[in-house]
Amino acid sequence: LEEKILDKGFVRLVDMMGDDYAAVKAARVSYGQGLKTPERDKALIMYLMEHGHETPFEHIVFTFHVKAPLFVARQWFRHRIGSFNEISQRYTEIKEEEFYIPENIRINVPEDRQKAIVVDDTELLEKVKEAMVKTFEEAYHTYKELLNMGVARELARIVLPLSTYTQFYWTVNARSLMNFLSLRADSHAQWEIEQYAIAIAKMFKATCPWTYEAFVKYAYRGDILEA
Amino acid sequence: LEEKILDKGFVRLVDMMGDDYAAVKAARVSYGQGLKTPERDKALIMYLMEHGHETPFEHIVFTFHVKAPLFVARQWFRHRIGSFNEISQRYTEIKEEEFYIPENIRINVPEDRQKAIVVDDTELLEKVKEAMVKTFEEAYHTYKELLNMGVARELARIVLPLSTYTQFYWTVNARSLMNFLSLRADSHAQWEIEQYAIAIAKMFKATCPWTYEAFVKYAYRGDILEA
Amino acid sequence: LEEKILDKGFVRLVDMMGDDYAAVKAARVSYGQGLKTPERDKALIMYLMEHGHETPFEHIVFTFHVKAPLFVARQWFRHRIGSFNEISQRYTEIKEEEFYIPENIRINVPEDRQKAIVVDDTELLEKVKEAMVKTFEEAYHTYKELLNMGVARELARIVLPLSTYTQFYWTVNARSLMNFLSLRADSHAQWEIEQYAIAIAKMFKATCPWTYEAFVKYAYRGDILEA
Amino acid sequence: LEEKILDKGFVRLVDMMGDDYAAVKAARVSYGQGLKTPERDKALIMYLMEHGHETPFEHIVFTFHVKAPLFVARQWFRHRIGSFNEISQRYTEIKEEEFYIPENIRINVPEDRQKAIVVDDTELLEKVKEAMVKTFEEAYHTYKELLNMGVARELARIVLPLSTYTQFYWTVNARSLMNFLSLRADSHAQWEIEQYAIAIAKMFKATCPWTYEAFVKYAYRGDILEA
Ligand SMILES: Cc1cc2nc3c(=O)[nH]c(=O)nc-3n(C[C@H](O)[C@H](O)[C@H](O)COP(=O)(O)OP(=O)(O)OC[C@H]3O[C@@H](n4cnc5c(N)ncnc54)[C@H](O)[C@@H]3O)c2cc1C
Ligand SMILES: Cc1cc2nc3c(=O)[nH]c(=O)nc-3n(C[C@H](O)[C@H](O)[C@H](O)COP(=O)(O)OP(=O)(O)OC[C@H]3O[C@@H](n4cnc5c(N)ncnc54)[C@H](O)[C@@H]3O)c2cc1C
Ligand SMILES: Cc1cc2nc3c(=O)[nH]c(=O)nc-3n(C[C@H](O)[C@H](O)[C@H](O)COP(=O)(O)OP(=O)(O)OC[C@H]3O[C@@H](n4cnc5c(N)ncnc54)[C@H](O)[C@@H]3O)c2cc1C
Ligand SMILES: Cc1cc2nc3c(=O)[nH]c(=O)nc-3n(C[C@H](O)[C@H](O)[C@H](O)COP(=O)(O)OP(=O)(O)OC[C@H]3O[C@@H](n4cnc5c(N)ncnc54)[C@H](O)[C@@H]3O)c2cc1C
Repeated sequence: LEEKILDKGFVRLVDMMGDDYAAVKAARVSYGQGLKTPERDKALIMYLMEHGHETPFEHIVFTFHVKAPLFVARQWFRHRIGSFNEISQRYTEIKEEEFYIPENIRINVPEDRQKAIVVDDTELLEKVKEAMVKTFEEAYHTYKELLNMGVARELARIVLPLSTYTQFYWTVNARSLMNFLSLRADSHAQWEIEQYAIAIAKMFKATCPWTYEAFVKYAYRGDILEA
Repeated sequence: LEEKILDKGFVRLVDMMGDDYAAVKAARVSYGQGLKTPERDKALIMYLMEHGHETPFEHIVFTFHVKAPLFVARQWFRHRIGSFNEISQRYTEIKEEEFYIPENIRINVPEDRQKAIVVDDTELLEKVKEAMVKTFEEAYHTYKELLNMGVARELARIVLPLSTYTQFYWTVNARSLMNFLSLRADSHAQWEIEQYAIAIAKMFKATCPWTYEAFVKYAYRGDILEA
Repeated sequence: LEEKILDKGFVRLVDMMGDDYAAVKAARVSYGQGLKTPERDKALIMYLMEHGHETPFEHIVFTFHVKAPLFVARQWFRHRIGSFNEISQRYTEIKEEEFYIPENIRINVPEDRQKAIVVDDTELLEKVKEAMVKTFEEAYHTYKELLNMGVARELARIVLPLSTYTQFYWTVNARSLMNFLSLRADSHAQWEIEQYAIAIAKMFKATCPWTYEAFVKYAYRGDILEA
Repeated sequence: LEEKILDKGFVRLVDMMGDDYAAVKAARVSYGQGLKTPERDKALIMYLMEHGHETPFEHIVFTFHVKAPLFVARQWFRHRIGSFNEISQRYTEIKEEEFYIPENIRINVPEDRQKAIVVDDTELLEKVKEAMVKTFEEAYHTYKELLNMGVARELARIVLPLSTYTQFYWTVNARSLMNFLSLRADSHAQWEIEQYAIAIAKMFKATCPWTYEAFVKYAYRGDILEA
């Protein structure tokens, strides 16, 4: 499973362990029983989610490979329950053109400091993109210049913008993934990370349909996902 | 993979995600590279472990099914980085004969309050077992009696001894598993949990031979495991 | 702050860091601002809780000293976000009379395997207590006998029942403490741990009145606590 | 306690809970004993650290207020055992001149891709600073321009460089802090975060002298700190 996100990013499901049945089996240990009929197994998942018994979902685990701009990665890495390995900008040189250029432009509304609303304004979009591209190119130019002076990669990269793409592996269990979806597949999250969260949600739904259904019905705290 | 432990316990590998290569791939993201030759992949694992770069090993994940006495489970559940689901003694009735009867007897040495040494004394062993069995039977008898009076399982079970067997699912990544082995596959751990740890170590070695080798060589803090 | 719980247990607040203002200050960093008027500070706490912004509450931290029966401690230690140090039954001899004798008796109802309801039946209570005391005394007698044979404490203690009292230190932040209250200050939890949770809730309320109020209003998932 | 770090950063100890004695008291619960003489208390701390019994140090907790460049914060936030609240660049406008201008210049050595060595070359330093300042000013100029066009802060800020300063609260216990010091008060860490780690180490030493001494002697894995 793989999805392209934004202009140059992606989310790819690299590996996974378990599925709906893994949660059922783990929960049934609690009752000293194994799998039953599919109907009863699904009903158990619904029951667990409805009553906040979320530990059985920790036995479903995903590894994703993600490419995303730094400002998205910064938000993502705040989710501590999970494992990350990211490309090192200390050890690796950044290749040209690896900057995010938005097609989706938001403006702040004066009444609510925390709100940003999307505008469909091609002229503004072009001006924004132009200003950004120019700045990114200059920053990248300086980066290269510094490397040419012999400056260490770890230091040269501090001129690079937050729009720079990075890549990482993320291993996370379904319980923590659901928390991620509640917070990031939500209109209060920044639009860009929301796109990633929606892609993750699709892969979650495709691999764990019952758990996904139960989650959206009983535990999801965001306002975007639907059954 | 499954091993019998103690008189009635076991450890069974239910599922796993990744292997030595999963750690290599996660680490190579850091350098913007994929798999190379087996020699270089193994060398990378050795390098990571030697230099304390342990996050790549978090992408290898195991689910075990364990049957162990309560006093062992109590020690096990102290390991917070991981996921547990245990049979509920509130919801499930305990079946007879589910008590651990030791064959390995230790005595305390007066000089060191924290030390317990194994003794090979058949007479003592028989006396110990006799005293234990008698107490376990009486406890179980009271348990049944209380249930017969209508007392709730959650309350009746408080008469049961710490030798009572329990079962649980444990999902844990290789990094946390290695910490478990350092602490529990060690002569300072209680002998019983040590037996479980040794079984876990074998399964770890069988599934991730390079990581195991690197662990024992560079990161293991216990005094029992060998390459 | 200290409360006696059950027949021989207690919860004691040993130390704490921060209070309502600590959450406010941490949250205000996000907006580049410090404390304001008490009204606005309280309003911020209400806002954070209502919208699920719970990280600011992680900067309020408590250390409790708890004495509780083993079966309660077993449930408590499942809460992984926090720190425990427990008296060692491997290194320490258990003193007589340290068993929990219930005054609150519950029976199982046939219709719902997970339900246990309290009964007010003095006769039953006396019979239960008698059966329990007898079993505890026998178990303790065997424990002493085994110690006298020279058997190591770590092994002798496996005859002791789940009603045995233990003691531990628990350091936990307010966010994790609120999760504990949602799950344990709740009628689905076992009655005994509920009593401890209620005591913890009182101390939380006494030290962080605004956070407590906001919690009960917006985030609490249990069915017992009131503003 | 407060220290200035780099050109515009700082570390300030906002609050703390416990000290050497808190670890001693937590550990003594394990033995059913309280504080003893200072000599024996210190000896206990030495013993715990030497034998890897680190949980008692989780009961000592610190809250720091930190101001650091984004690339330092990114490394810091990888430490998952602890709590962060950071100023929001989505909700807050960035004030001018908040960029890190290095005085310490490192170059990469061709033989070892992971190594960066400090050079004392005033000419290079001036050239580097000039190139950086120019790029930072342009980036900041574009940032302001975008805000003036009405672009939302969350989007405008993606042009800002990794040298931009941020601020955050960090609550962390002594065990996790020691892990931070092993990894970041170390010559393999990037020089800038090392400076912060050294300041943290000083405050740790000033507030928990025995624990610090024991740590450096028995548990520290870095190569910079001294007793
Ligand atoms: C719309 C939005 C705006 C935000 N604005 C800001 C901001 O301005 N400033 C800022 O700093 N952050 C901000 N954040 C980030 C937020 O504070 C969290 O860091 C992030 O969402 C991760 O959430 P989490 O802690 O639930 O996830 P994880 O860290 O993955 O934790 C998962 C769960 O584990 C538990 N947990 C894990 N560690 C702990 C712990 N140490 N103590 C207690 N419980 C723990 C909690 O129950 C948590 O829900 C924002 C997030 C969103 C979605
Ligand atoms: C021989 C022996 C004797 C013991 N005696 C006692 C005793 O008398 N009393 C007692 O209470 N316990 C005792 N323990 C248990 C011990 O204190 C630990 O609880 C247990 O070994 C789990 O170890 P851990 O914390 O490393 O593992 P985990 O909880 O799995 O943690 C894994 C790693 O994550 C980090 N970590 C996780 N959570 C935190 C956190 N909140 N803060 C900081 N770092 C964190 C640490 O780096 C840790 O190494 C004993 C253990 C052994 C092996
Ligand atoms: C009424 C009741 C009945 C129960 N019955 C059973 C039973 O039959 N069998 C059984 O085994 N247990 C049972 N439990 C225990 C339950 O499964 C939890 O282990 C316990 O309640 C601790 O909850 P927690 O995981 O939310 O807390 P913590 O472990 O303290 O975690 C706090 C939060 O951090 C996050 N978190 C921490 N670690 C992880 C992780 N590894 N992955 C994802 N998220 C994480 C979660 O958001 C969590 O809410 C029962 C609990 C209750 C209240
Ligand atoms: C010199 C250096 C170079 C680095 N290079 C890179 C790089 O190229 N790419 C990169 O991605 N990162 C890199 N890192 C970051 C590194 O991988 C860690 O993320 C960071 O150092 C935090 O360490 P930690 O996991 O021990 O800390 P914490 O996350 O605070 O964890 C503390 C302890 O808790 C335990 N623990 C916590 N969570 C888990 C979990 N989910 N599973 C198992 N155990 C857990 C571990 O025992 C750990 O030691 C580098 C770090 C250093 C110091």
